[in-house]
Amino acid sequence: MFSNDNCAFRSSSSAPCNKTGFLQKNNSLDEKGRIVGAFSQKQQLVSELGEREQRFRRTETDFSNLFARGKEIALSQPCSSSWRWWTSSPTTSARLSTDLPKCWTSITPTSCWRAWRALIWSFLTSPNGDQMVFLHRSSIKSIHFSGFSLNSLSLFFSILSFSIRFTYEIAPVFVLMEQLTLKKMREIIGWPNGEGDGLFSPGGAISNMYSVMIARYKYFPEVKTKGMSAAPRLVLFTSEHSHYSITKAGAALGFGKENVILLSTDERGRVIPADLEAKIIDAKQKGYVPLFVNATAGTTVYGAFDPINDIADICEKYNLWLHVDGAWGGGLLMSRRHRHKLSGVERANSVTWNPHKMMGVPLQCSAILVREKGILQGCNSMCAGYLFQPDKQYDVTYDTGDKAIQCGRHVDIFKFWLMWKAKGTVGFEQHIDRCLELSEYLYNKIKNRPGYEMVFQGEPQHTNVCFWYIPPSMRNMPDGEERRERLHKVAPKIKAMMMESGTTMVGYQPQGDKVNFFRMVISNHAATRSDIDFLIDEIERLGHDL
Amino acid sequence: MFSNDNCAFRSSSSAPCNKTGFLQKNNSLDEKGRIVGAFSQKQQLVSELGEREQRFRRTETDFSNLFARGKEIALSQPCSSSWRWWTSSPTTSARLSTDLPKCWTSITPTSCWRAWRALIWSFLTSPNGDQMVFLHRSSIKSIHFSGFSLNSLSLFFSILSFSIRFTYEIAPVFVLMEQLTLKKMREIIGWPNGEGDGLFSPGGAISNMYSVMIARYKYFPEVKTKGMSAAPRLVLFTSEHSHYSITKAGAALGFGKENVILLSTDERGRVIPADLEAKIIDAKQKGYVPLFVNATAGTTVYGAFDPINDIADICEKYNLWLHVDGAWGGGLLMSRRHRHKLSGVERANSVTWNPHKMMGVPLQCSAILVREKGILQGCNSMCAGYLFQPDKQYDVTYDTGDKAIQCGRHVDIFKFWLMWKAKGTVGFEQHIDRCLELSEYLYNKIKNRPGYEMVFQGEPQHTNVCFWYIPPSMRNMPDGEERRERLHKVAPKIKAMMMESGTTMVGYQPQGDKVNFFRMVISNHAATRSDIDFLIDEIERLGHDL
Repeated sequence: MFSNDNCAFRSSSSAPCNKTGFLQKNNSLDEKGRIVGAFSQKQQLVSELGEREQRFRRTETDFSNLFARGKEIALSQPCSSSWRWWTSSPTTSARLSTDLPKCWTSITPTSCWRAWRALIWSFLTSPNGDQMVFLHRSSIKSIHFSGFSLNSLSLFFSILSFSIRFTYEIAPVFVLMEQLTLKKMREIIGWPNGEGDGLFSPGGAISNMYSVMIARYKYFPEVKTKGMSAAPRLVLFTSEHSHYSITKAGAALGFGKENVILLSTDERGRVIPADLEAKIIDAKQKGYVPLFVNATAGTTVYGAFDPINDIADICEKYNLWLHVDGAWGGGLLMSRRHRHKLSGVERANSVTWNPHKMMGVPLQCSAILVREKGILQGCNSMCAGYLFQPDKQYDVTYDTGDKAIQCGRHVDIFKFWLMWKAKGTVGFEQHIDRCLELSEYLYNKIKNRPGYEMVFQGEPQHTNVCFWYIPPSMRNMPDGEERRERLHKVAPKIKAMMMESGTTMVGYQPQGDKVNFFRMVISNHAATRSDIDFLIDEIERLGHDL
Repeated sequence: MFSNDNCAFRSSSSAPCNKTGFLQKNNSLDEKGRIVGAFSQKQQLVSELGEREQRFRRTETDFSNLFARGKEIALSQPCSSSWRWWTSSPTTSARLSTDLPKCWTSITPTSCWRAWRALIWSFLTSPNGDQMVFLHRSSIKSIHFSGFSLNSLSLFFSILSFSIRFTYEIAPVFVLMEQLTLKKMREIIGWPNGEGDGLFSPGGAISNMYSVMIARYKYFPEVKTKGMSAAPRLVLFTSEHSHYSITKAGAALGFGKENVILLSTDERGRVIPADLEAKIIDAKQKGYVPLFVNATAGTTVYGAFDPINDIADICEKYNLWLHVDGAWGGGLLMSRRHRHKLSGVERANSVTWNPHKMMGVPLQCSAILVREKGILQGCNSMCAGYLFQPDKQYDVTYDTGDKAIQCGRHVDIFKFWLMWKAKGTVGFEQHIDRCLELSEYLYNKIKNRPGYEMVFQGEPQHTNVCFWYIPPSMRNMPDGEERRERLHKVAPKIKAMMMESGTTMVGYQPQGDKVNFFRMVISNHAATRSDIDFLIDEIERLGHDL
């Protein structure tokens, strides 16, 4: 039995599937030396590349330093022919026409980076011309893919379709790029040397689901094999203001919604640590087993940041998994001015961080970051022999597919990586600071303005500005059920009129016992104060006669 | 409490979240009449559009008929200004500059289609010019998004990033397009009138996971609330040749790998129905509760099609959920010549079908299709009041986000829809028939060729051709452990040499007690017989001296 062997991973294991019998690495020591990871190959790279590429090398492998002042796009000259790596997305077989220079020899991570660099060069120097790699038909046409057909239509739409498959050989550049970027994100979180693990997943909800899965695997690994009946009644804790995906994960993964315990918040929407501790104690007294606490960094509605350090103290005391859902607020880690709002995030066991939200990366781009290396693999690996063969001619620890609940994955890393290269860390910082300044401007504009009531007092922590607009006809109404009923209908009506008149759109929702209110969120740094002014003018124009 | 109300859906419910209290639809009857679904609006559309648009209308709303002989791209003239719908991907707020014609009035599904049509027109008539909608900066620049910033970099990469969010208003065109396409796929499966439900998910593994989730919800809806402890010990059945994602779903969702029972297959890799029945009876005798059977239509390695009708008989007899994993083989439904291999698929409760595999749609594009309407919503809805407000000015049954385990979703429908429009159903049929002809050519070429052994006898059901290459030095070896050990290393060595020499690549794997063999799979209809000849020449060139 070759393919159905089950390998029992434990949480600290990061080794790939090892089989016995015939299955042995056929890498000689020499080969191994040649194909070890790109990250450990810097020295070799230095000697291989000339002086002129020094600048490239630094940024390519290190990114710009966190909070570096400048931004730069430093790229080398093209390595002729190697860029066709890019187009290599076969499923199980591909043929490169023999009239093209051979590029499959670029199998090692080192040469892979060189090929990639060349690709970027042609991309940046010829964004509209024949050299545009994506549309360079004369070359692409001579490569056959089993993955998709190369008629003009799919050629165009292949732009939409890069994928990271289960193995390094299928998407070498993206595998390396993902590893590099995740490491950088872990460094920014504050985990020593950026050690740990992670994946890009199809959205924050799935990232949060991963966090619950790996927490369960950490404490009750037998659930993977035997199911939830092998564990006691496990409970999860998350704020009543948190994203619904935590509860959804609880339902999907077999915990049950009832066992996702909602924590009370203060008037600003932040978890009250004492409430968490009381509910942990209460659960234990009932015979349940507390497993997991989610702290939200940037709630959906209020943009609130839970006090991570206080929550971490409690998690340590009771030995619970601490997850930080920074899908919305994680971007603030890029800002020296605002990252204190996530103080304590380095104590988390896992973090969700969606660059597609506050950092302006186009959807979808969400990372699940994990402090303990190997646990994702342990939790999710199935060691399917027909996909993950250990007897390959490269280091199969680059085959990351078995860490995921997906098989093939859409490439979400490329746009993020390129944006980071282009904007620099400091560019993201400016982006984020600018958005927060704008929301501060909005807050200051309306906090004392006639006809406005803030949903919570004080300056918002994130860019979420939550407010009611009170039409003139209601301004003298006494507080009470009638006023609440009328006010509840104001925001929906104004939003509908906005959409009808085609000028702007702003979301609303109720929250707890609060009737519908507007929630203005800014994540586009190209917005201006005049846009904010326009929004307020428009609300007043449309809502004046309600 | 507005946002934390939980609405209890049952399997047959398809209604959106209904809240009590202040939350009421503010749609008047008149408004409702105006905004009912596009599909029931054909007559209105007919009178609105002139004679010249007849051709467009037919294909736009009906697709080409299944197995229609011709293919056509029939599109109307552009509706000036309306195409900017396309660019509407705000998260919670967006502003359209007032110097642009208003397009937000196109909120109804009917006008949405008109806008969309115009977009396609400009796309197809000016793929490289200024009118190219994706790069039509002068217009796009004057629209502000909160979703992402419009610098040139993200503008370019926004091509990669369309998303279907949780609500119709955020991605109206794509929501409608997804509904239309899923309905067509259900019709092709054979469900009456294409009724049912479905979603595009991030890959076949997630689609399969959905099937297990909804099967559990169908029979044990209380698990959603109370967790797996509320159910007896549930078991799932799938073939030992099936994709590992079924077992992975079992592990993730709290069933446990042990409770995913692997079914024996015949020599061609097809489930033996008698083995299924015996294992169901055995499980029941042990006190377990059989829940779910997966029949694979096109296994990963052999390309085998399980006998769906025989399996459906057993599922009906024992009242089990029948899922058909047609991730790989589902595409054959488009071929009159080959769809008989999925005979009985219309009896399934759910079907996974990945257009990104056999149909050549770029990754990712996977559909989970469900026969019972409303069950996806019932299974996954969390009714988060801050996302799904029932008091909107359009029919909120178009807000499909709560059906998914994701929140926002990447738009996977567009490329598929456009390919279908361009190629026609008959185009997909030709694509598929062509690939199967090629694999038949390969099979016939090597089945009696010296140095080749087929892994299973007889013509493959799918394009998977599985074979060993026996180097001359081994051809006279007696069968036995030594020969097996040597043969096991042949395919890895040849593949490694292929990658080194940069000419072609073909996958290998072991299966059960069979040592490593090559698995040639063809899904690119642009491949030719000469490519096949080249592959065989290359295997023999590289493997001759092993």
